[in-house]
Amino acid sequence: MKEYKSLEIIQKSPNSRVYYLYLNRPGHLNALSRDFFTEFPQAISSLDQNPDVAVIVLAGSGKHFCSGIDLQTLADGFKETYDADCGRNVEKLRRHIKFLQEAITALECCRKPVIAAVHGACIGGAIDIITACDIRFCSSDAFFSVKEVDLAITADLGTLQRLPSIVGFGNAMELALTGRRFMASEAKDLGLVSKVFTSKQALEEGVKLVAEDIATKSPLAVIGTKAVLLKSRDLTVEQGLEYVATLNSGILLSNDLKEAISAHSQKRKPKFAKL
Amino acid sequence: MKEYKSLEIIQKSPNSRVYYLYLNRPGHLNALSRDFFTEFPQAISSLDQNPDVAVIVLAGSGKHFCSGIDLQTLADGFKETYDADCGRNVEKLRRHIKFLQEAITALECCRKPVIAAVHGACIGGAIDIITACDIRFCSSDAFFSVKEVDLAITADLGTLQRLPSIVGFGNAMELALTGRRFMASEAKDLGLVSKVFTSKQALEEGVKLVAEDIATKSPLAVIGTKAVLLKSRDLTVEQGLEYVATLNSGILLSNDLKEAISAHSQKRKPKFAKL
Amino acid sequence: MKEYKSLEIIQKSPNSRVYYLYLNRPGHLNALSRDFFTEFPQAISSLDQNPDVAVIVLAGSGKHFCSGIDLQTLADGFKETYDADCGRNVEKLRRHIKFLQEAITALECCRKPVIAAVHGACIGGAIDIITACDIRFCSSDAFFSVKEVDLAITADLGTLQRLPSIVGFGNAMELALTGRRFMASEAKDLGLVSKVFTSKQALEEGVKLVAEDIATKSPLAVIGTKAVLLKSRDLTVEQGLEYVATLNSGILLSNDLKEAISAHSQKRKPKFAKL
Amino acid sequence: MKEYKSLEIIQKSPNSRVYYLYLNRPGHLNALSRDFFTEFPQAISSLDQNPDVAVIVLAGSGKHFCSGIDLQTLADGFKETYDADCGRNVEKLRRHIKFLQEAITALECCRKPVIAAVHGACIGGAIDIITACDIRFCSSDAFFSVKEVDLAITADLGTLQRLPSIVGFGNAMELALTGRRFMASEAKDLGLVSKVFTSKQALEEGVKLVAEDIATKSPLAVIGTKAVLLKSRDLTVEQGLEYVATLNSGILLSNDLKEAISAHSQKRKPKFAKL
Amino acid sequence: MKEYKSLEIIQKSPNSRVYYLYLNRPGHLNALSRDFFTEFPQAISSLDQNPDVAVIVLAGSGKHFCSGIDLQTLADGFKETYDADCGRNVEKLRRHIKFLQEAITALECCRKPVIAAVHGACIGGAIDIITACDIRFCSSDAFFSVKEVDLAITADLGTLQRLPSIVGFGNAMELALTGRRFMASEAKDLGLVSKVFTSKQALEEGVKLVAEDIATKSPLAVIGTKAVLLKSRDLTVEQGLEYVATLNSGILLSNDLKEAISAHSQKRKPKFAKL
Amino acid sequence: MKEYKSLEIIQKSPNSRVYYLYLNRPGHLNALSRDFFTEFPQAISSLDQNPDVAVIVLAGSGKHFCSGIDLQTLADGFKETYDADCGRNVEKLRRHIKFLQEAITALECCRKPVIAAVHGACIGGAIDIITACDIRFCSSDAFFSVKEVDLAITADLGTLQRLPSIVGFGNAMELALTGRRFMASEAKDLGLVSKVFTSKQALEEGVKLVAEDIATKSPLAVIGTKAVLLKSRDLTVEQGLEYVATLNSGILLSNDLKEAISAHSQKRKPKFAKL
Repeated sequence: MKEYKSLEIIQKSPNSRVYYLYLNRPGHLNALSRDFFTEFPQAISSLDQNPDVAVIVLAGSGKHFCSGIDLQTLADGFKETYDADCGRNVEKLRRHIKFLQEAITALECCRKPVIAAVHGACIGGAIDIITACDIRFCSSDAFFSVKEVDLAITADLGTLQRLPSIVGFGNAMELALTGRRFMASEAKDLGLVSKVFTSKQALEEGVKLVAEDIATKSPLAVIGTKAVLLKSRDLTVEQGLEYVATLNSGILLSNDLKEAISAHSQKRKPKFAKL
Repeated sequence: MKEYKSLEIIQKSPNSRVYYLYLNRPGHLNALSRDFFTEFPQAISSLDQNPDVAVIVLAGSGKHFCSGIDLQTLADGFKETYDADCGRNVEKLRRHIKFLQEAITALECCRKPVIAAVHGACIGGAIDIITACDIRFCSSDAFFSVKEVDLAITADLGTLQRLPSIVGFGNAMELALTGRRFMASEAKDLGLVSKVFTSKQALEEGVKLVAEDIATKSPLAVIGTKAVLLKSRDLTVEQGLEYVATLNSGILLSNDLKEAISAHSQKRKPKFAKL
Repeated sequence: MKEYKSLEIIQKSPNSRVYYLYLNRPGHLNALSRDFFTEFPQAISSLDQNPDVAVIVLAGSGKHFCSGIDLQTLADGFKETYDADCGRNVEKLRRHIKFLQEAITALECCRKPVIAAVHGACIGGAIDIITACDIRFCSSDAFFSVKEVDLAITADLGTLQRLPSIVGFGNAMELALTGRRFMASEAKDLGLVSKVFTSKQALEEGVKLVAEDIATKSPLAVIGTKAVLLKSRDLTVEQGLEYVATLNSGILLSNDLKEAISAHSQKRKPKFAKL
Repeated sequence: MKEYKSLEIIQKSPNSRVYYLYLNRPGHLNALSRDFFTEFPQAISSLDQNPDVAVIVLAGSGKHFCSGIDLQTLADGFKETYDADCGRNVEKLRRHIKFLQEAITALECCRKPVIAAVHGACIGGAIDIITACDIRFCSSDAFFSVKEVDLAITADLGTLQRLPSIVGFGNAMELALTGRRFMASEAKDLGLVSKVFTSKQALEEGVKLVAEDIATKSPLAVIGTKAVLLKSRDLTVEQGLEYVATLNSGILLSNDLKEAISAHSQKRKPKFAKL
Repeated sequence: MKEYKSLEIIQKSPNSRVYYLYLNRPGHLNALSRDFFTEFPQAISSLDQNPDVAVIVLAGSGKHFCSGIDLQTLADGFKETYDADCGRNVEKLRRHIKFLQEAITALECCRKPVIAAVHGACIGGAIDIITACDIRFCSSDAFFSVKEVDLAITADLGTLQRLPSIVGFGNAMELALTGRRFMASEAKDLGLVSKVFTSKQALEEGVKLVAEDIATKSPLAVIGTKAVLLKSRDLTVEQGLEYVATLNSGILLSNDLKEAISAHSQKRKPKFAKL
Repeated sequence: MKEYKSLEIIQKSPNSRVYYLYLNRPGHLNALSRDFFTEFPQAISSLDQNPDVAVIVLAGSGKHFCSGIDLQTLADGFKETYDADCGRNVEKLRRHIKFLQEAITALECCRKPVIAAVHGACIGGAIDIITACDIRFCSSDAFFSVKEVDLAITADLGTLQRLPSIVGFGNAMELALTGRRFMASEAKDLGLVSKVFTSKQALEEGVKLVAEDIATKSPLAVIGTKAVLLKSRDLTVEQGLEYVATLNSGILLSNDLKEAISAHSQKRKPKFAKL
């Protein structure tokens, strides 16, 4: 498997279809570097293409999930951009921001579900990342902050687009304008995470259980469910119904459905081919 | 009143404007049969047209609200469709799914409010049904599951379109990908139900109170409120404001408003004509 | 500062950039009068234009936040409109409703954040107002009701458009159809308010802390965050990302960012110019 | 075949898959009556369900295509509605207009293409009808008018929604505000009709050629093309691309494609099964 | 009537409901000055509120319709803005552009139809203006250019939003990227103007005829038609149908409809009250 | 410059900023092969990144522009896909279609304008390509056909999404359902091409003139114009205005604007830096 500077991919047990993707600069609290923005979409895409992979778990190496954008990287970019014609400057920066955004959006382009497992700090750009994941869990030591406003930045990597539909518009506005820190239990109350585990170890075990369970389900139904939820988010209800009817008319009548019905009537666990 | 195979309509007290619509195949846990998909929109439409009806309560006969799509029905459809040309097959199935969807969407086409009263199982297709209702209550024994993924199916009757705006996008994704069972109190925390009652009997009494209360309100204001909320869901805020201004400019200056203001100043209960 | 009949603007401490806007007809429970709908957008706009203002707190004078539309005003309008040609009547009323709506929407047109501080009654039209604010806090004595339905009115000043994205679609429907009263703690659970304070005094102190804190942040980042959240609400995620990339490419490279990074590395509080 | 009061369905030659639907009240210039609005969607739906039908041609019996809404019908409805409570009145009328609209929209719900063949008058409601058809041809004696404004009516059966995308927004506004009559050749220049034939007979022959030609094409591709164009009209380009990719992934690999490729390589006409 | 520096309002004959609004800086080819952007929305709004006005004709004094934004004004704004913090600069400019845009959008906010009568030059900002008008006529000497690109400007006052739906997307792109001049007859072919008159005098007479004719129609139907076309432009077809059904259910049953039907049966010209 | 199998990039004169991209399989009528779909987005992207390139001209080598999808390629894909599980099959095909679509959409992702220069055949997939270009010219020998329907295919590479806004919805439907051939002059009347040249040589010269002219304009204004037109296509008018105001506030105050104003006042041609 390819080597990454900012990431690590691990298949924890040989036959498992669950792959772990680690933010892997623990010495820098997994702060998001230039490398990250290049490597992350590559890693996600390679896992999406790999038929051995059914579910991806995204986690952080070391003491924290991720402390957000690397400030040095930010400051460097700042200097570099600042000497040209103002208009060209802006155009260049706009392209750069879109490049950064695409690294995060790769999580939604990935057909397979991505589960974020958060412990410790989950700050700024890390919120952009987890709001683009499909399921979020955390340990009780996790803490969160939509921190950008405190760096004089309007968050531009997705938080302001994706957080409102997850925690409600009012909560998203309050968190983004205050930048205040909030803890695991509030994250649960807000709907940002689906469950809080009592420790990092409990988190790892719990996430493993959920991920392995999803990995046993029909891959067609799993990627269909993710795709339909994501596409319907930006459609009217009627358009979303038309979309899922169209999608399902093509993929519903698969071996997976036969196997599921047969297993159900035989009261056994179904087994599905890879995708 | 018309006889249905899969449903029963009951007016529980003679002068009440609250009508009860029962999923009525208790021997099959009210599983959704072919009959259901034909009869349900007819029943809803007849209640909508009936001026004696102000509010509809949707409930399940027997021990459970509804266990979802009837598997036998599903398997039958599966066989029947599977021998023609692949493309025509898909086209036929697409029309079939849209036919099924329309049965559920009938709940939103109905001008009058529909209150779901859930006890026992509320699984798979039953979630599609209740997310298209206007208010949801349950008893403490109720349990829920977006179960389709476990049958190798991408849910296609509305859950993936309507659940996210009710419980938040993150919660909807987690429930739909895991298919896990959740209980009444979690349904309340998620915003899926508005209240949990301690028993089936308490549910029935509580729902009756709310339904009878809404039935005493101005029918114009009640159907206006439902219509505006549903239409605004798929519009920008500005378009939604334009829509409600346009609607209200026509229906606001009614006898109902006169009666409401007059009753208010006379400190008595207002009385409104049927619609 | 301009005098208003229905409002009062107060700068509580001389150098503070937090301005308080009071609904100021305590003898009428701050019910919304004709004057209000003319004066409110003027007041909001003047605060938005004033470079000394960074944050606006909206509160009510006297015992309650606001009891909603003034019924006398409503009844007057009712009489006045009722003698012309029916079609022209409707057209006139439609323009009138849009005029009223614009007074509330002024809160979203205001670039600077508006924090609602609610105590006592927050009824009917008051819900329209607070759902257009950016952050909502209340004291424990606050109570709320989407009351319009009980006056035979389909709420038409924004509640039905803005409440669903704040509290979820199901909760919004239930509150709007029942018109039931709900208390501070439920408002918190629903996400309608971000925090409940134990008393009116605690509310005032708490709001002051939050407001003064936001007032110390980069004004560019604060108004950018508000603008992007509001605009993205009505865009697809992809369109919202494009929008924020475009906005940030122009305003990111400001003195505020330099100051924020420099203050961060020097471990001091940053200081930002007015806007 | 079912008998209609306002319509006639004709299969002009025994083996043809082209069916003709005639507006058939020539004594009233085929003015749209109450019967029409009930019968038209029934007729369209029966043709859509009928596997012998591949293409529908819509034409008018007698000297004109259609003179629009029957004024007597309109005046009757006017009297009848005018004595109840004003608000209920409006609500009743709103339902009635939606009922009328659905009769026209049936043309778009029909999966199979509908070709309008227009001669003589095509006025008011007739424009609503032809803008919901898929292809429009006329003879040189045809004349058109978006006439509603001259009856003090805002056109409400679809012209104001569908005409702009056919003739351009500016042209649609001018035609709708002036209500002026325009002739066949201008209709062609505007894009309202695809071709003008020199006489009614030439029109009939020309339409027959086009309709029979489409009837020889793959039914899957024909209904797919109509569906995708209609659905994409209300989607972003990206959403439309996603939709057609999803649709085609299910229906592309059909016997029709095999037959088309095989016929192409054998340089013969392909033959497709009915749908 | 109010005096304007950049505009003149003329009622050409005493009883006419057609009012003429002149761009009135003929010495500067009616170039759009700072005054214009303040006065134009005021003038439009006053005409909209004035019940004596049924139709507005927009024309240019002197030899040309309008040569676009005043370059001196542009250059002034350029200097003035260029010394502050870059980010604040951009924010200020963004507000300024939105202020300019609102002046043009006033044409669409005006309920009554606005007819542009173009002679001579119609360049740059003038295209922004006429694309926001409802009907466009010109004399044969008129010439047009989407000129902004030649001043290193991305047109930002509405041309890029409104022109495509008037002339087609491809034509709009070509005209905006090349900035080439095109003549009256091409403007007619493109659908940008509805008719070309042989001379300025013929234009004046022709526009007068059309405007006076519209002024005799039902004001409710006229403003309804404009409103529905504009609102439907940004809605799906189904949403547009819902909107017009809702609007018409309120305004259809007016004295205007009675008068129109009665006049029709008595074969006389109808007469409608002012609005 | 990179070598391509299906394409050729030519800079025709040393200092020109106009680059020519040729579909370069003249022996196969430039039919779109597997190679094409991989190479085309690469070529477009490399030209977009290259600061020496201001304008791209897309043309065909040999006697024709392009005859559409290579049938052999299509048939191969057909065989290969047809033996797996039906549902997986569909999923695989869906990904494949999206991959093909992205190759075409690359034309819109490219910031710089792309001019299609069409001669001879422009069939099927070639229509998908040119509708995604920004400007289209052709020679008088050009002929066009939305041919997919005759191969039993619903066009799925963009024609059904992009053609309606270019030629009108009615024309697009007629062309797509009939698949009929149409000639250069009709393409001009429909708005599909902006100009018809009398010969291939005249086309080359004419395109060169237009392309070189655009290449002398401000690159910021040119890419801004393209971006705003494309983005606004999928936004409401109001959202489009907000977008262009935001974009322009960042890029307007550039050296390009200074140079344009200065050149204008000095009556000389402006000169702009590369982008």
